[in-house]
Amino acid sequence: MRTKITQILGIQHPVFQGGMAWIADANLAAAVSEAGGLGLISSINGGVEAVRREIRKARELTQKPFGVNIMLAAPDAAEIADLVVEEGIGIVTTGAGSPAPYMEKWKAAGIKVIPVVASVAYALKMQELGATAVIAEGAESGGHVGDTHTLALLPQIIDAVQIPVLAAGGVFDGRAAAAMFIMGAAGVQVGTRFLLARECRVHPVYKERLIKASDIGTMVTGKSLGDAVRALKTPFTKKFAAMEADPAVSADEVRAFGTGSLRKAVFDGNLAEGSFLAGEAAGLAKREESAQEIVNDIISGAEALLKTAPDLIYGE
Amino acid sequence: MRTKITQILGIQHPVFQGGMAWIADANLAAAVSEAGGLGLISSINGGVEAVRREIRKARELTQKPFGVNIMLAAPDAAEIADLVVEEGIGIVTTGAGSPAPYMEKWKAAGIKVIPVVASVAYALKMQELGATAVIAEGAESGGHVGDTHTLALLPQIIDAVQIPVLAAGGVFDGRAAAAMFIMGAAGVQVGTRFLLARECRVHPVYKERLIKASDIGTMVTGKSLGDAVRALKTPFTKKFAAMEADPAVSADEVRAFGTGSLRKAVFDGNLAEGSFLAGEAAGLAKREESAQEIVNDIISGAEALLKTAPDLIYGE
Repeated sequence: MRTKITQILGIQHPVFQGGMAWIADANLAAAVSEAGGLGLISSINGGVEAVRREIRKARELTQKPFGVNIMLAAPDAAEIADLVVEEGIGIVTTGAGSPAPYMEKWKAAGIKVIPVVASVAYALKMQELGATAVIAEGAESGGHVGDTHTLALLPQIIDAVQIPVLAAGGVFDGRAAAAMFIMGAAGVQVGTRFLLARECRVHPVYKERLIKASDIGTMVTGKSLGDAVRALKTPFTKKFAAMEADPAVSADEVRAFGTGSLRKAVFDGNLAEGSFLAGEAAGLAKREESAQEIVNDIISGAEALLKTAPDLIYGE
Repeated sequence: MRTKITQILGIQHPVFQGGMAWIADANLAAAVSEAGGLGLISSINGGVEAVRREIRKARELTQKPFGVNIMLAAPDAAEIADLVVEEGIGIVTTGAGSPAPYMEKWKAAGIKVIPVVASVAYALKMQELGATAVIAEGAESGGHVGDTHTLALLPQIIDAVQIPVLAAGGVFDGRAAAAMFIMGAAGVQVGTRFLLARECRVHPVYKERLIKASDIGTMVTGKSLGDAVRALKTPFTKKFAAMEADPAVSADEVRAFGTGSLRKAVFDGNLAEGSFLAGEAAGLAKREESAQEIVNDIISGAEALLKTAPDLIYGE
């Protein structure tokens, strides 16, 4: 499948793998890029030198383009911003903050910058800064979420900007991908489904819980802290929500309870203290698969639907 | 456009108008049905006899099929359940409760029952009860909402049931409609956009506020009461949310503040005390139009996208 974004980035399929903190490493990113999508290494991977090692490892695993997702709110964001230049990274996606301080440097280095945005206002700001494209992320997605959901958000951002718009949040298989393409998306970003990739290092308990999740298996916590996050419903998220609702518990206590919880999910599969970030489409999760199988299923599913779409008009 | 649902109901276009309380009257429903969609009269319209009058008035305004949406949690639901049989209504949609007590009677009267559902479990229950179809309503929609959003909810419900599934929540124009059809929906239900119909009686301030709304212009309140509702952000919703968050304010006081608020929005355009129910797609609202223009725009937009969808594969 060819779109504006495959042309600009020189990739085969318009499928990005979400740059998930502590999860998106060289193995996963390289496997997705090898499958023809765009793999992304997260900047939250144990510090600047660890990210450098992941970048170099990914280069050994694939000749194809991959990128780095930079969490701009992180304390080492400025160092990571330099690292991607030093390491000759060609594609950067950004989240949780503004890339403004780094845009000039990155553009001088030829880096294509594709911010994740959750609102029209932010998409416009990113276009003005010179972003190559934006990823409109609906609040169905796992992890940090905004207020508006993909089906309503995507067309509003497409109407507002001139640069290509990718869609994220709720995209699990070829059906949602076809839906996004027919609405005008230049690509899709997929997070939750890649948690199930064989090349994804999350603890087996994480994968099991995703496969068992129902359509109402996730919840958003942290709104009272100004830091809304979607994760699987677990003893941890339920306790977190109860603490948030309890006027006797301070915001600092709630924050302290959450600190390190993602790592406890990813590495230990700890249901009592771990935050198993996941999107609403986790209910569609069925099995572990290779990254190649996931990319193929999404793209071949979407293409089959797009090909036969005209038949729907006089369908039955 | 022909789908399973147009065939079953004998309607021209697979577009339902949401049966919005205090809003969906004979004028609106008849105008939507005349335009080839399915108009629906709300059972919350001022009592059983008022609903009877609306039904009879709609019959004078159109020969085409229309239906009644029954809010099952309402105190007069049992009387409305009899009314639709007495008045020879052919199509009933239901919300906010289980239609189980009435299914036998309705089926004996030849009524096709299409419940609005917000989860897979509820969709399965409705199929078991003999529903003709279900409307999978994502929490992007205005009014009472569940937890899961359309892009993630629709495929999970389609995978779970054998009856036709319509999609609601976030469907404003032909883009979202095409997206829902390509994902397998047999139809779409549209609420917010029909608030802008010339035939819709909501106060001019309601329509103005919809047209001014941005992509982040709605919010959900009432979660703490077990009664989550999406509406435009106004002085009323902000105060409601603040009362909910305040441990010094009892749930009863919050509920009392909300009582009658929808009518104050619909009839008085009262921003301080009115609840302007609206979905996330309100940000796409641009102008008042006739119901005919709205239905035509949604369907012609969707058909044009479905027709050219194969070109997307080798698009750029």
